[in-house]
Amino acid sequence: MSVLIVGSTALDSIKTPKRENPRLLGGSASHAAVAASFFSPVKLVGVVGDDFPRRYIQLYHRHRIDLEGLQILPGKTFHWSGEYEINMNNRRTLLTELGVFETFTPTLPKAHQSAPFVLLANIAPSLQLHVLNQMQRPKFVAADTMDLWLNIALADLLKLLTHLDAFVLNDGEAHMLTKDDNMFSAIRKIHKLGPKYVIIKKGSHGSILSGPKGFFICPAYPLHCVVDPTGAGDSFVGGMIGYLATAKGAIDDHIRRAMIYGSVVASFCCEGFGLMRTTRIKRADIDRRVRELEKLTRF
Amino acid sequence: MSVLIVGSTALDSIKTPKRENPRLLGGSASHAAVAASFFSPVKLVGVVGDDFPRRYIQLYHRHRIDLEGLQILPGKTFHWSGEYEINMNNRRTLLTELGVFETFTPTLPKAHQSAPFVLLANIAPSLQLHVLNQMQRPKFVAADTMDLWLNIALADLLKLLTHLDAFVLNDGEAHMLTKDDNMFSAIRKIHKLGPKYVIIKKGSHGSILSGPKGFFICPAYPLHCVVDPTGAGDSFVGGMIGYLATAKGAIDDHIRRAMIYGSVVASFCCEGFGLMRTTRIKRADIDRRVRELEKLTRF
Repeated sequence: MSVLIVGSTALDSIKTPKRENPRLLGGSASHAAVAASFFSPVKLVGVVGDDFPRRYIQLYHRHRIDLEGLQILPGKTFHWSGEYEINMNNRRTLLTELGVFETFTPTLPKAHQSAPFVLLANIAPSLQLHVLNQMQRPKFVAADTMDLWLNIALADLLKLLTHLDAFVLNDGEAHMLTKDDNMFSAIRKIHKLGPKYVIIKKGSHGSILSGPKGFFICPAYPLHCVVDPTGAGDSFVGGMIGYLATAKGAIDDHIRRAMIYGSVVASFCCEGFGLMRTTRIKRADIDRRVRELEKLTRF
Repeated sequence: MSVLIVGSTALDSIKTPKRENPRLLGGSASHAAVAASFFSPVKLVGVVGDDFPRRYIQLYHRHRIDLEGLQILPGKTFHWSGEYEINMNNRRTLLTELGVFETFTPTLPKAHQSAPFVLLANIAPSLQLHVLNQMQRPKFVAADTMDLWLNIALADLLKLLTHLDAFVLNDGEAHMLTKDDNMFSAIRKIHKLGPKYVIIKKGSHGSILSGPKGFFICPAYPLHCVVDPTGAGDSFVGGMIGYLATAKGAIDDHIRRAMIYGSVVASFCCEGFGLMRTTRIKRADIDRRVRELEKLTRF
């Protein structure tokens, strides 16, 4: 089944101690869409300016991503620039130019409104809600977020939470949202805000699912070298929903394995700048790491 | 088979925002010995002063811990006092009185020298070496450490590492020791210092084993409330070696499950002050959480 993904489509300039990478393809929706495309047909909803490089349109095409919902408007593409410190853990934003993203209103083409799986990748909760309002009874809706929205758009986010099947956030955001330092106790509070599934991303420590069948402790794939973690969280959630959309039967029967697939796609994402590594792998590479994770967690 | 455990035997005064707990039974060897005692006969090697409460001797006895190697000397028992902040994550040492521990030289009774399993719980690496030098070809030797020894006794620690089967440390210590921010790359460097098995403790994020059969990603048991994490790392390594000592056959075939058992005993340790919770559980309580962890990690 197809997955509709809305989020940011951006150009990322990423500086590390060793090199500069100007105007890479980035944004939450780009990472999530490429990740999901390994498993399911993807419909991308976003906006770019008329400066958006043609090679990135071609890249989407190579991943058979439906671009009917991608608006190309006069003006500049959203541009983010950031710098990593020598240990690759701390990131500092140097510049944010919203460009055409500033007035983005996602309007869904008719064919998109009946997509069974919906991923509201990280953008303003008001836009996530706006997209959801145009959908006809999707089978499964997941949303990701970031600390910024907890700070400046909490009311919208809380409204969004009542409409979700799955809410994905990182551990720091879970603590911010609930004012609870214990992650499992924080998860319980987040369930009370609406979502049936709560998924906490913990970077290199993996992720945690809480759902009707209890908790699932999902490992991260061991990486000896992290080149650029930008987009790893988006790749995780994109890979997860892409896999879920291919699985027959109840969500509950597949969501654990879907997280494992998301975790593996995220591991590839970290091994290159932007989408450079992720766009060079094949489904077989993903399956190989999933089998490795099976061995790494067996006892 | 029996496990010899050497380390600190102390009185811990632990202050939290809600209460004070003066002179609890503590120390790395106390936590590790109680944890190991659920699985194997334990021989404790340590020192206490003549102020050491009789009820703590009785507590060791209840766990059938052999105290022939516990010296009781005139003077004061090692006393540590610390305070937790409101979020229970940050700990601050208020006081350290070494007492009889200051001149401790562990001399092993004859019967102890042939113990097949040896845990050198956290004390000065020179003392860990001193104990090891008295042993007759043990089957398996594991050692734990702490950041203090990396700072003030690195040469001794490096010497110790060449004599170990397994070295257990936390992620921060692994980075300190190797100057490598990537945990898996740090692990590779630690193997080169000697140990066949490297085990990295990551607190609530679980632990990682690296050994001849590759990595194992060991989960932490989900806790909704952490009362006092003091001794959790010691309980983990104690439970692990205690379980290993009961298992027949090659270490490689049992070390993963042994870590799971250690992880579960550590989870109980966190649920009470000092050893209060750990000393009130039964083997069946441990087995129940191990079965739960099996379910929590299956995909």
